[in-house]
Amino acid sequence: MRRVRLGMVGGGQGAFIGAVHRIASRIDDRFELVAGALSSDAARAEASAKELGIARSYSDFREMAKAEAAREDGIEAVSIVTPNHMHAKPAIAFLEAGINVICDKPLAATQEQAQAIADAVKASKAKFVLTHNYTGYPLIRQAKAMVANGDLGELRLVQAEYAQDWLTEATETTGNKQAEWRTDPARAGAGAIGDIGTHAFNLALFVSGLRPEALAAELHSFAAGRQVDDNAHIWLRFNGGARGTLWASQVAVGCENGLRLRIYGTKGGIEWGQENPNVMTFTPFGEPKRIITRGGAGLGGGAGDWTRIPPGHPEGYLEGFANVYTDAADLILGQGDGTLLPGLEDGLDGMWFIDACQRSSADDGAWVAR
Amino acid sequence: MRRVRLGMVGGGQGAFIGAVHRIASRIDDRFELVAGALSSDAARAEASAKELGIARSYSDFREMAKAEAAREDGIEAVSIVTPNHMHAKPAIAFLEAGINVICDKPLAATQEQAQAIADAVKASKAKFVLTHNYTGYPLIRQAKAMVANGDLGELRLVQAEYAQDWLTEATETTGNKQAEWRTDPARAGAGAIGDIGTHAFNLALFVSGLRPEALAAELHSFAAGRQVDDNAHIWLRFNGGARGTLWASQVAVGCENGLRLRIYGTKGGIEWGQENPNVMTFTPFGEPKRIITRGGAGLGGGAGDWTRIPPGHPEGYLEGFANVYTDAADLILGQGDGTLLPGLEDGLDGMWFIDACQRSSADDGAWVAR
Amino acid sequence: MRRVRLGMVGGGQGAFIGAVHRIASRIDDRFELVAGALSSDAARAEASAKELGIARSYSDFREMAKAEAAREDGIEAVSIVTPNHMHAKPAIAFLEAGINVICDKPLAATQEQAQAIADAVKASKAKFVLTHNYTGYPLIRQAKAMVANGDLGELRLVQAEYAQDWLTEATETTGNKQAEWRTDPARAGAGAIGDIGTHAFNLALFVSGLRPEALAAELHSFAAGRQVDDNAHIWLRFNGGARGTLWASQVAVGCENGLRLRIYGTKGGIEWGQENPNVMTFTPFGEPKRIITRGGAGLGGGAGDWTRIPPGHPEGYLEGFANVYTDAADLILGQGDGTLLPGLEDGLDGMWFIDACQRSSADDGAWVAR
Amino acid sequence: MRRVRLGMVGGGQGAFIGAVHRIASRIDDRFELVAGALSSDAARAEASAKELGIARSYSDFREMAKAEAAREDGIEAVSIVTPNHMHAKPAIAFLEAGINVICDKPLAATQEQAQAIADAVKASKAKFVLTHNYTGYPLIRQAKAMVANGDLGELRLVQAEYAQDWLTEATETTGNKQAEWRTDPARAGAGAIGDIGTHAFNLALFVSGLRPEALAAELHSFAAGRQVDDNAHIWLRFNGGARGTLWASQVAVGCENGLRLRIYGTKGGIEWGQENPNVMTFTPFGEPKRIITRGGAGLGGGAGDWTRIPPGHPEGYLEGFANVYTDAADLILGQGDGTLLPGLEDGLDGMWFIDACQRSSADDGAWVAR
Repeated sequence: MRRVRLGMVGGGQGAFIGAVHRIASRIDDRFELVAGALSSDAARAEASAKELGIARSYSDFREMAKAEAAREDGIEAVSIVTPNHMHAKPAIAFLEAGINVICDKPLAATQEQAQAIADAVKASKAKFVLTHNYTGYPLIRQAKAMVANGDLGELRLVQAEYAQDWLTEATETTGNKQAEWRTDPARAGAGAIGDIGTHAFNLALFVSGLRPEALAAELHSFAAGRQVDDNAHIWLRFNGGARGTLWASQVAVGCENGLRLRIYGTKGGIEWGQENPNVMTFTPFGEPKRIITRGGAGLGGGAGDWTRIPPGHPEGYLEGFANVYTDAADLILGQGDGTLLPGLEDGLDGMWFIDACQRSSADDGAWVAR
Repeated sequence: MRRVRLGMVGGGQGAFIGAVHRIASRIDDRFELVAGALSSDAARAEASAKELGIARSYSDFREMAKAEAAREDGIEAVSIVTPNHMHAKPAIAFLEAGINVICDKPLAATQEQAQAIADAVKASKAKFVLTHNYTGYPLIRQAKAMVANGDLGELRLVQAEYAQDWLTEATETTGNKQAEWRTDPARAGAGAIGDIGTHAFNLALFVSGLRPEALAAELHSFAAGRQVDDNAHIWLRFNGGARGTLWASQVAVGCENGLRLRIYGTKGGIEWGQENPNVMTFTPFGEPKRIITRGGAGLGGGAGDWTRIPPGHPEGYLEGFANVYTDAADLILGQGDGTLLPGLEDGLDGMWFIDACQRSSADDGAWVAR
Repeated sequence: MRRVRLGMVGGGQGAFIGAVHRIASRIDDRFELVAGALSSDAARAEASAKELGIARSYSDFREMAKAEAAREDGIEAVSIVTPNHMHAKPAIAFLEAGINVICDKPLAATQEQAQAIADAVKASKAKFVLTHNYTGYPLIRQAKAMVANGDLGELRLVQAEYAQDWLTEATETTGNKQAEWRTDPARAGAGAIGDIGTHAFNLALFVSGLRPEALAAELHSFAAGRQVDDNAHIWLRFNGGARGTLWASQVAVGCENGLRLRIYGTKGGIEWGQENPNVMTFTPFGEPKRIITRGGAGLGGGAGDWTRIPPGHPEGYLEGFANVYTDAADLILGQGDGTLLPGLEDGLDGMWFIDACQRSSADDGAWVAR
Repeated sequence: MRRVRLGMVGGGQGAFIGAVHRIASRIDDRFELVAGALSSDAARAEASAKELGIARSYSDFREMAKAEAAREDGIEAVSIVTPNHMHAKPAIAFLEAGINVICDKPLAATQEQAQAIADAVKASKAKFVLTHNYTGYPLIRQAKAMVANGDLGELRLVQAEYAQDWLTEATETTGNKQAEWRTDPARAGAGAIGDIGTHAFNLALFVSGLRPEALAAELHSFAAGRQVDDNAHIWLRFNGGARGTLWASQVAVGCENGLRLRIYGTKGGIEWGQENPNVMTFTPFGEPKRIITRGGAGLGGGAGDWTRIPPGHPEGYLEGFANVYTDAADLILGQGDGTLLPGLEDGLDGMWFIDACQRSSADDGAWVAR
């Protein structure tokens, strides 16, 4: 099976998520990273590319899109791993060049940027994948299959949370580079709701298969001088009558990366937490709780399809991320339908989520319809 | 040390919480149950008393209050373990007779009943204890002490939840006696918010030491034909700027008695769950999480004071309940100040909570001030 | 239902296990503690009895046995809660007086004492109960029922452990009274193997229903100057070909009271730990693991019979202990057959266990047959 | 940084561990797989190589060693991922050709094969790495550092276990390929003790820094007709007086890949389990237990060095395996001293372990000295 030729925008020295994308693309050996505009600083881009052994380095993503589209052996897909406000321009440039785009989330820093991406996706024959990587966890896909199969009956409650503590103090003022851009309204567009809330929201929709009808939100900025939300309490109303809550926090001391999903229906309930993602519980009403393990016994299809090693050999965040990349490779090579891949619609849902949270919070928690 | 002479109203054959109160009163051998009006049905009252070996049986609580007050060896305290709508009348009768009252929660089924109790408490020299029994767990008292001591810094978030699943189906229509009265608006006054929400709310206030300033709520009735709420999503605003959420549910499949409290401040966070109550985690910001155990190492006072057996020998629900009874015995005998005992004010807070939830939910989740 | 009249030998001021027995006897209100020889020191015995409100105080257990046997309202049972070397004499005195005996474990400090008790039990019409209290945990009884029912198939492995850390340092030399007698060969007869190893051994036999055929052991004394074993590694051979291991330790830093049992057969496996005793896992081979909870869903008889409160309301060590007392009350009153009650045979098994461990260890771990 | 040119022997279509090695070598992008003798069947070797995009395919490892050694761009290292009895011949061939060897464990199927490898390693200037991959887990390395630092004081106990259930039934007779060779004495050399026991033994030595002085073992073969051990109970004596136990099982129903290590010293204890490898507990004696997380707060050096993503983003088995590969790349490129890399000595320890277990078990559990 041949490897997909991949490029990257962003992800130069000192970046975080770019390295994650590169590992994810390598794990199943489905991509070959051959070109990059790793930094807008030409020297840094060049040094980064050299360090990573990337053949072709560009300092400008527009030039890269144009040059790569013109090559016979040009890239077939590009990963965009820049801060949020820098997603739209490169995404549009590559889409216009007919090159498939794998873009980090959230979709953009503003609704305008998001709309521009949407327009470009619609106008292009290239594919657009948004790396809501948590959808790649095998047990999340298992949960989705179980819900779809009716194992939980009619859904009533979707409880999502994503709690961290790394912004407990105002580290954006004391030299933490990640904190700097992620708490800057101009570059991030939002705080916790964008950075992690969109993940939780996406996961809730992905697994439940429900659509949001309205939300209410109260956003907080606890750390002194913080310019974006660092905590959010959100209520959700779904189609069909299900209800939910979502809590996103970056000031919950003791929480590292506590993304957690609990869904309850008339017939059963499931609970899953990202920090030990190889385990999920499922309770059929009136029966003992079962511990479902990745690749373990009794899975009726589902998790077994997206795992590399036997049960009890834990897979983690990078393997879940890799599942999204591998599905993207299949999609790009015409070998899969990409049913499970997050894309533009998920991105637009996330942008609505951010906007609705901000509007609701500004209106004392009033409901905002989808 | 002599035993307090105790009476009981309610708790006859077939009842649930009465038996719990009796065990709780016995564990530390501080009470002697000598009189009861265990049922309003005279024959059932008599039979129940005989079965339990209670010396003096009454079929009418008013008669009991009068007779016991007149005896030299009459009861010094009475436990009221009737359904919610039957708290006020006996409570008032015993308070008026100068007999101390230990009353099950919530305070009453209506605000009017609650006010009448409040008036009677103020007019009486007798004490009034409300069995918010979860305050008796040693680690809950430890947590309260740690918050008061500043171990968590300035509080930011109080996340409480109480999830059960026993009302997933409409068992009130199929012969479940507990379900019948607990889902009857006339007898219970409210559903999940009264039965379990008040516990979670009380615990949040007890541990945090905060006062509520406002709440917003959305109540749901998922089971077909249910006349009260069986699920509630609540937001809380506390004095000093702390915020919180509270989720109460009786339809969360797979949850048995999931009362859980998480509190986060500027310096630390704690997490505790009732189902394994001998363990709590405490994370000082920037340090590894610690597992604090009941009676275990490193408690700077606190939990060690309310436990009977060494760490690793689990105490449970009944011992926590017993701590409330034992504190009540101390209070009645003039041996303690009852600082940790829940009482009238807690009951009124709970009644406000129920009322505010209902008003907010009826107003589409608008904030209701305390 | 009338209460059994109970006496107590030992358990005066400063003792530990006596207070546990008293609470256990009270929880279900099946006993009335009316007489005691709480200490061999007359003044201390008197003061202790007065503090506890015990009507009749004796300073000599022989006198007590005689006097109580002569009274019409004399005690029907006596709890013996003295150190191990002081079990035999009072047990024999009361058995000879025809009074039922509830004795703490292990049976005795020496084989000779144990044999003397055995002779007395056989010669007496009174009952003899040994408080291997962990057999009273509902889920332990559930596990026993599941094994007996064949849910695990043919048993292969029984892995038991009991790890503590309270004797990590030589606290017997620095004033810890419990440590003093429990590490004194004369008073305790053995160290970890007697104090906790016998519990684990008893539990393994109780749940598995197997009989030991041989054991091999290596005993260690890690703390400086310790005169008894504080750690033991043991192998077990059972009838029918099952094999097992047992680890008992009082120097495993971080372990509070880690009694744990794991049993595996051809068809299933179960795992239970005492520190969170309301939960057990059961895995039918080739299916997902189930979490069995005390009183919870899907128990086919078993745990539901020995519990007072609904699932999710944790019961603990004291309630498990109380189940043994309550069964003893039934036995004494002729209302039950005592099938689940540990007694003389369990005590003799434990004494064989202690002796065999010591002999095997002295012989470099050679196998010792039952 | 340039990639190390890697070859592979074994790991063709249908194999398991070969794919794991390939992923592990890719994760950090330190290797380039350019040659292989993936199967002794020429057509299968060719097809496998093609499928994997490996440039140079050989059907004979001797030919491969010779040809690659002769090329300027020949491989610098070879991964040997054949069944145990096929480790020695290719390892020796490549060592003799001066090519570094990365060999799967255990070292060999027989002591003779092991000795031959040892001789070849000593005679060669090439490096030899044995993939005891569990040593690559960040928290295992953290634990090793903590022990070395004296955080646990003087070690007393090392309790290791490795429990699985996949050989509960005799699946080697019903078409399970992995079961076939792993339970074949000729190809595997031993059963559970070789396949998983050596891992647990290696980990115990790696973390504790202790040397074994003697062991005693009882091996069992529970499944009908099984020709090797599927369960083993082992005692260990270490230098300096520490003692330990090791339990390896492939018939413990409900255990997936339960490798677990617990170490206790005079000052502290640690506990770690492979199935959730991002978490370890550490208890300083007399203080609350701490939860140490991979990359989390309060690590004084250690785990932070071998991790790619922030705490709370779980890494798993493949990342641990990748750490061994990455260290091997450093070693091969002369960029590291390989201090943490398992090699020949670890392999010989493992072979002694297997042999000693078999001899002890044949002698009714007698001690066998190192």
